[in-house]
Amino acid sequence: MAFSTIEWDNGKIKLIDQTLLPNEFKHIYCDDLPSIWEAIKSLRVRGAPAIGIAGALGAVLGIWNSAAKTYELFLAELKEATDYLATSRPTAVNLFWALDRITNTAKENSNLSISELKEVLLAEAQVIIEEDKAMCRAIGKHGMALLNENDTILTHCNAGGLATSDYGTALAVMFSAHEAGKKISVFADETRPLLQGARLTTWELMQAGIDVTLICDNMAAQVMKEGKIQNVIVGADRIAANGDTANKIGTYNVAILADAHDIPFYVAAPTSTLDFNLKTGSEIPIEQRSSEEVTEGFGKMTAPDGVKVYSPAFDVTPASLVTAIITENGVAHPPFTDSLKLMRNA
Amino acid sequence: MAFSTIEWDNGKIKLIDQTLLPNEFKHIYCDDLPSIWEAIKSLRVRGAPAIGIAGALGAVLGIWNSAAKTYELFLAELKEATDYLATSRPTAVNLFWALDRITNTAKENSNLSISELKEVLLAEAQVIIEEDKAMCRAIGKHGMALLNENDTILTHCNAGGLATSDYGTALAVMFSAHEAGKKISVFADETRPLLQGARLTTWELMQAGIDVTLICDNMAAQVMKEGKIQNVIVGADRIAANGDTANKIGTYNVAILADAHDIPFYVAAPTSTLDFNLKTGSEIPIEQRSSEEVTEGFGKMTAPDGVKVYSPAFDVTPASLVTAIITENGVAHPPFTDSLKLMRNA
Repeated sequence: MAFSTIEWDNGKIKLIDQTLLPNEFKHIYCDDLPSIWEAIKSLRVRGAPAIGIAGALGAVLGIWNSAAKTYELFLAELKEATDYLATSRPTAVNLFWALDRITNTAKENSNLSISELKEVLLAEAQVIIEEDKAMCRAIGKHGMALLNENDTILTHCNAGGLATSDYGTALAVMFSAHEAGKKISVFADETRPLLQGARLTTWELMQAGIDVTLICDNMAAQVMKEGKIQNVIVGADRIAANGDTANKIGTYNVAILADAHDIPFYVAAPTSTLDFNLKTGSEIPIEQRSSEEVTEGFGKMTAPDGVKVYSPAFDVTPASLVTAIITENGVAHPPFTDSLKLMRNA
Repeated sequence: MAFSTIEWDNGKIKLIDQTLLPNEFKHIYCDDLPSIWEAIKSLRVRGAPAIGIAGALGAVLGIWNSAAKTYELFLAELKEATDYLATSRPTAVNLFWALDRITNTAKENSNLSISELKEVLLAEAQVIIEEDKAMCRAIGKHGMALLNENDTILTHCNAGGLATSDYGTALAVMFSAHEAGKKISVFADETRPLLQGARLTTWELMQAGIDVTLICDNMAAQVMKEGKIQNVIVGADRIAANGDTANKIGTYNVAILADAHDIPFYVAAPTSTLDFNLKTGSEIPIEQRSSEEVTEGFGKMTAPDGVKVYSPAFDVTPASLVTAIITENGVAHPPFTDSLKLMRNA
C-alpha cells in the first residue's frame, strides 16, 4: 500500500489527516487521549474499520504511560480512557466493538504485570489491524479473479484504503489486480454531495499508480453507452439476507444503469456487513442528511436561500440488480439467501 | 411570468444578470453596443432563444441613436453593429439567425425614412420576442394536458424562462399547469457540473410559487423508487428525425431511471430544435468540456491536482426511452419519424 491510514508508531498514533485530502497529504501524531479523540471527532480518520482501529489504538494510548501500581487502578484508568473515546463518535458501532475488545483483553489477563498488560493490549490492537488487512486482501484476491485484462471498472463513493487500515473493500479488488500485474483502469463517480469519489477515491488510485478518470455522477450512463465500462464495483454499508444492499446514495442509480447496459454489478464487502436480521432491504430506514451539504457543499451557496432539499444518505440496491457479492470468504452468487449463509459460515 | 428575462425599455435593453443568480436578483440596463456585447459574452443572458433576442435588441440598440442621413449610411451602421455582436458568442446559431432577421427587415424596407426604419426594426425584434412567448405558451398548453392533479415532475438542468423571453420549454409545462390551477410539485436535479438545476430551475419555480425540491443527480433513482415522481420532463438541444434527443449531460441517465420505474419521460422543445438532417442521434458529436468545471466548479479544488476528468457536455437519449415530445404544435408520440414531421409541418 502506498500509504498507511493509521498505525502505532513508537508510543504515538500516526494517521493521515483526511480532512486535508486531496490537496495536502499530511500525517499527524497523536500522543495523548484528547488528540486522538479530536482526530476521530473531526473525521481526520473516518470509515467504520479505521474508526475501530483508532479506538483500539486510542485505548492503548490511554494507558501507555500509566503509573498504576495495581491491576484495579490500571483497569480504572483503561475504563476512563475508553469511556472518553466512546464520546468521540457516539454512533460508530465499530468504535464500541473495538473498545470492548481491548477492555475484554485486559480483563482476561488480570494475572499479568502492568507492563506486560500494556504490551498485550497493544498486541490485541495490532491483531485488529492485521485482521482488517487480511480481510481487505482476501476481498481483493477473490474479486480480482472476476476482472479481465484491460477491463475498466466504474466505482462510486470511497470504499478504499482510507476507510480501513489497508486496501479497503471495492478498491481492494483494483489494488490487488494492479499489484498482480493485471492492466486495469477505473472511472470514479465524484459522489455528491460530499464528493468522496472526487476527493478520496481518485487520490488513492493515483497514489497506487492506477489509471483513474473522474466523472460527475450524471455522466455514468453516457460513459457506459460509449463502451468504456466492463464492470461496476461498489462497497456496502449493510447487506440484507436476500442480498439487498444499502450503500452510499447513488449506488442504486448506478446499478440500474449497469443493468441497462448489460454490465456486471459487483458489491465488495466483509461478512461483518451481512445483517441476517434483515430479510430484505426494505427494512432498512433511510437516513436524511442536512440540506446544507447539498446547497453549501463547496463553501459557497449554490442554490436559492430557503430552497427545499431532499437528501437521503444512502439507498438500497435490490439483489436482482447485483451480479455477485465479493466477501473475504469468497464470491457469493444468486440466489443470495443461500450463498451469503455459506460466506458467513466459511 | 414573475420576471422578464430580457426586454426593450425606453431606448435601453433591460435584462436579469443571470451570473448573480440565485443569490442576487438584479437587472442591468444596456444602453450601448459594448454593454450588450459584454452581457452576451459573460453569460449574463444565456439560453438559445434569449441570446437570439439579445442579438435582435442589440442590433436595434446599435442604430437607435443613429444620425445617418441616407439609407446606405444607416445600413452600414447596422452592419457594423451586427458584425460586432456576432463576435460575442460565435457558436450561438440563434444569435446569427436573429441578427440576419433584423438585417433582412432593414433591406426589405429601403423605402422608409430613417426614423421609420428604426421603429420597424424595433417592431421586428418585438415580433421575435412575441413569437418566442407564443412558442413557450403553446408548449405549456400542450404539455399540461399530460399532467394529472397532484403530480410531481422531475426535471433536469434548466429549460426555463431564463433561457427564453418567457415560460421556457420544459418549465413552461409546469408554469402553465400551475397558472391553470393544477396542483403540481417539482423535483429538480442539481445538474452537475454547472448546477443549472440548483441555481436557476429552483429559483424560477420558487419565484412562481411552485413547490420545488432540490436533489443531487444521483438521488433521482431513490426518489423514483419511493414513488415520489409521476412524470419526467426535460428540454432538448437537438432532436434527430427518429426522436433521439440530445440534451444536457445526465438526461440519458434520468431516461433510463424513468424507464426502470415505469415513469413517463417527456421532452419539451420547439420544432426549431428538430434537425431532420440527422437520421439518428448517433450522428451528433459529443462536445467535451474542460476538467476545471468538474474539479473547481465552486471556486475551490475538490479533486487531486492533475486528476484526469471526462466531461461530456451532453448526451443522447434514444427515442425508445422517450414517451412523447411536446412541441408548440402539439404532442408527438412514437413512431417519431412520422409524428415529428407532422409537428414541423403543422
